[in-house]
Amino acid sequence: MSSDRASRLLSRLENRLDAAAILIGDAVSDGYAADATARGARPVAVLRPRDTQDVSAILSAANELGQPIVVQGGRTGLSGSSRPLQGEISISLERMNGIEALDVAAQTMIVKAGTPLQVVQQAASDVGLFFGVDIGARGTATVGGNIATNAGGIRVLRYGMYRAQVMGLEAVLPDGTILSSLKGLPKDNSGYDLNPLFIGTEGTIGVVTRACLKLHPKPQIERNAFIAMPSLKAAQDLLARLRVELSGLLSAFEAIFPDVYEGTVDYMGIRPPVEKGAGMYAMVEIHGQAPDQDNERFEAALAAALEDGLATDVVLSNSLREFNGLWGIRDGINDYLFGNGVTIGFDISVPLSRMQEFLDRAALAVDEIDPDARTYIFGHLGDGNLHYCMFSHHEKKVAEAIFSGIEAVGGGVSAEHGIGTDKVKYLKYARSEAEIATMRRLKTAFDPNYILNRGRVFEAPVSVQQAERA
Amino acid sequence: MSSDRASRLLSRLENRLDAAAILIGDAVSDGYAADATARGARPVAVLRPRDTQDVSAILSAANELGQPIVVQGGRTGLSGSSRPLQGEISISLERMNGIEALDVAAQTMIVKAGTPLQVVQQAASDVGLFFGVDIGARGTATVGGNIATNAGGIRVLRYGMYRAQVMGLEAVLPDGTILSSLKGLPKDNSGYDLNPLFIGTEGTIGVVTRACLKLHPKPQIERNAFIAMPSLKAAQDLLARLRVELSGLLSAFEAIFPDVYEGTVDYMGIRPPVEKGAGMYAMVEIHGQAPDQDNERFEAALAAALEDGLATDVVLSNSLREFNGLWGIRDGINDYLFGNGVTIGFDISVPLSRMQEFLDRAALAVDEIDPDARTYIFGHLGDGNLHYCMFSHHEKKVAEAIFSGIEAVGGGVSAEHGIGTDKVKYLKYARSEAEIATMRRLKTAFDPNYILNRGRVFEAPVSVQQAERA
Repeated sequence: MSSDRASRLLSRLENRLDAAAILIGDAVSDGYAADATARGARPVAVLRPRDTQDVSAILSAANELGQPIVVQGGRTGLSGSSRPLQGEISISLERMNGIEALDVAAQTMIVKAGTPLQVVQQAASDVGLFFGVDIGARGTATVGGNIATNAGGIRVLRYGMYRAQVMGLEAVLPDGTILSSLKGLPKDNSGYDLNPLFIGTEGTIGVVTRACLKLHPKPQIERNAFIAMPSLKAAQDLLARLRVELSGLLSAFEAIFPDVYEGTVDYMGIRPPVEKGAGMYAMVEIHGQAPDQDNERFEAALAAALEDGLATDVVLSNSLREFNGLWGIRDGINDYLFGNGVTIGFDISVPLSRMQEFLDRAALAVDEIDPDARTYIFGHLGDGNLHYCMFSHHEKKVAEAIFSGIEAVGGGVSAEHGIGTDKVKYLKYARSEAEIATMRRLKTAFDPNYILNRGRVFEAPVSVQQAERA
Repeated sequence: MSSDRASRLLSRLENRLDAAAILIGDAVSDGYAADATARGARPVAVLRPRDTQDVSAILSAANELGQPIVVQGGRTGLSGSSRPLQGEISISLERMNGIEALDVAAQTMIVKAGTPLQVVQQAASDVGLFFGVDIGARGTATVGGNIATNAGGIRVLRYGMYRAQVMGLEAVLPDGTILSSLKGLPKDNSGYDLNPLFIGTEGTIGVVTRACLKLHPKPQIERNAFIAMPSLKAAQDLLARLRVELSGLLSAFEAIFPDVYEGTVDYMGIRPPVEKGAGMYAMVEIHGQAPDQDNERFEAALAAALEDGLATDVVLSNSLREFNGLWGIRDGINDYLFGNGVTIGFDISVPLSRMQEFLDRAALAVDEIDPDARTYIFGHLGDGNLHYCMFSHHEKKVAEAIFSGIEAVGGGVSAEHGIGTDKVKYLKYARSEAEIATMRRLKTAFDPNYILNRGRVFEAPVSVQQAERA
C-alpha cells in the first residue's frame, strides 16, 4: 500500500519535473541511505528539484498522498535527521547549488540551499569578506542542512551559531506554500519573523530553498596560541578574563583535557607545543582588523595570564605554518579517538558555573556502570560545549547517566548536532513536557500529516503511526 | 454580555489573586488607556500578577471564557500593541519587576519581564558589563515589552536588535501553559528553540514573564564624531568603509539630512559642530576595549575619509561633555520636529543599495499629493532604518505613497516600532499573502480563541470578530 502511494506520487511528478529529477532503482546510490554516522533505509526514490517551484510541487503532492519525505543536503549530519527511514522518499537539494547575489557594501549573500558551506566561505573571501561559521564537513555540508540543524562549530564565541548568520530565508511548507523573505534588512519589525520556523528545526517544518546570509569583514589577523593551565577552574577564569580583555577579538577557546592532549600529540608523533603534565589545555584564537594593535593585546593578555598563574605555559603561533600546526592538534583529536576505538560521543552543553560539578558526578556515575570505561573530553569551552567521548560496552546505561547529569545541572543534550532520530529518547532530559508539547503543536500546525522528516526531534503522534501501519 | 464575561473572569480570579492584583473602576488610572502615541479605550479592569503562576491563572481563565486581554509593560509603544481596545482587560506586568540573577563570568542576567530597561542597563554597568540595547524610553519601557516588540534603537549596528540579546525566555501561552527556558546556554540544539515565538510577535502568541539576557563587556572607550559629507552616496560609501575599518568598534552611524540638521541646531540655539551647507550629516560612535588603539583607528579612519573627500568636515569629541553634546543634537531632533508641528512619522527600513531610488520616488509622490508637505529625514543609516517624518494634511494618501515606495524597493513598513493596531493595513506592502497567512496559522495554533492582543499585527479572523459582536 505504501509503495503504491509512492508510485502514485512519482507518476504524478513525472510530468511536472525534468528527467534528471527522479532517481529510482539502481540510480539511488548507497550514499542516499546514510548520514555521517550510520546507514539507514534505502529511500524509495530520490527527487532532485531544480528550483523552489519544483520543491513546492513535490511537497504539495506528497502532502496530498501522505507520503513521508526525508530532506537531504550534504548528508553530513550526526543525529539521523537526513538518514532515511523505511518507506521515505528523499528530496535532495544537490541541484540547487550556487550563489545568486553578493552585496559587498551590505555584507550579505543570497545562496541556494544546496550550496556547500565551503563555496560560501570562498566566495566571501574572494571579495574581502568572511563567513562566520566553520565546521569540519565544510566541503560537503550544505547551507540548507546547516540552517536546518543550526550548525555551530569552532567560532560561535565570536560570530554566533548559524542562526546569527541568517538574515532571511526562502522555504517551502509541507502543503507547498512558498515563503520568501530574502530582503536582507538588518532591522525589520514588519510582522512576525518567520525565519526561526526553519532554523534548527531539522527539516520538520519546511524545506529551506534559499538563504540571505550575513557576512563579516575578513579578519586582517588570525593568530592562535596553545596554553597549559593548572586546572579546569583556571581555564574558566582565563576564559572569563579573555572575553573581556580580548572582547571583539577572541574567536575560539577550545579546551582539551589532559589525557586527550597527551594522547593526541603522541598519536600524531609530534613534539607537544606546551609541556605535558598540566591540569588543562586550550587552543585560543583571535580574529582582528588591526594586526599590530591586536597582536599587542593578545600577547599582553597571555603574558598577564602567565604572571597571575592562570596559565603555566603559553606558545603563540608566529607564522601561518605554526598557526596551522596548533589547529592541527585540535583537529587531530578525532583521529586519535577513532584510532583508539572510541565510538560513543556526547555533544553536550553545560553551564560554565556547574561544569566541574557535572564532570565529577558523571565520572562517578560512569565508573559505577563500567569501571573499564575510558573517557575523553574536549570541546568548545567558550560556548560551554563539551564533546564527552567514551569507550565502553555499556553505551545505553552510560548515556542515561550522562543525560541525567545534564538534566541535574540544567544543560543541553545536544549542543550542536541536533536531536534527529538518534536522540529523540533523550530530549526529555533537556526540555520540559510543556516545551515538547509546544514543539509538537508547532509541527502539527504546519505539517498536520507529518510527511516531513517524521520521527525526527520527537516521535509522530500515535494516530499518525497507526495510520501508517494500517 | 461581554461585561458579564469580564465579571465572571474577575470573580473567578478574586480568590486566586491577591487584593492588589485587581484594579477596577476609578482605580484604573488614565495611563492604562494609552500608549506613547494615543489614547485608547479604558480597560475593563487591570490585572497585576505577582508572578508567572498568576499570569498562567489569568490567561487560562480568560481563554476559557473567551475574554480579550491586552498585555501592558511600560506602555511606551508607538504602534498600538499595548493600547487597549474596547472591552479588553489589561494584564500589566508592573509588579513583576526586578533582577533575579547576574552571572558576571557567563555575562548573562535573569530578569523579570516588568523590569525597566534602564534598571537592566544600570545593573550591568554596576558589575562592569554592558547591555546592548538603548532606546529613548529606557526609564519606562520594560524588558517584556522590549522583547515583544523586538526593540532596536541606536546601537543595532554593533549589538543587534533585542532578539540578539535574548538567551532564554519564560512565557505563558494563552491556555496557561508555562514555558521556561532560562538556562542561558550559548549553544544548545536540544530541540526547537521556542523563544522566537515571543520575540517581535507583539504579545500575540504569549506573555513573556522572565528573560535571560546576554551582556557584553563594558566599553572602555565611547567616543563620537560629527561628520559633514557631500551627499547620501558619500555617507553610504563611508558607512561601508567604516564597517570594515572600524569592525568591532563602530556602534552607531546616525544620518541626519541637511534640513533636519540645520533646523535642529537653530532650534536648539547652539553653534553647529560642523559647517552648515553640506549634503549630508552623520553622528558616528565607537565602543571599544582598548582606548589608545581604538582612538588611533577612529581618528585614522576619519582622517582618511576627509582626505578622500567622503567627508568635508569632521568634529571629534574630546571630553564627556563634548560626547554628550554631539549626542544632544541627535536627541534634539525630536524636539525640533514636534516644535514644528510634525506629526507624521514613518519608521521604515530600506535596502541601502536602493535608498536614493526610494527617496527620489517618495519625494515625487509626496509632492504630487501635497505640494505643501514638508519632509524631515534622519535615522539609523547603519541599519537602513530611516525615520521619514512629515507635516501634511493628507496623512492617509501620503502613507499609501510611502509604503508603495517601500514595497517597490523591498523594504519594511516598520523597522523597529512594530505593526500594532496602527499599521495593520500597511503590512501587505512588506509581506506576501503567504507570509501573512503563515503568521495567522502560527497565531491560531497557540491562541485559537484570539484572546491575546487581538487585532494587533493582523486582524482577527471574521469568525472571531462575528462571535464577539453577537
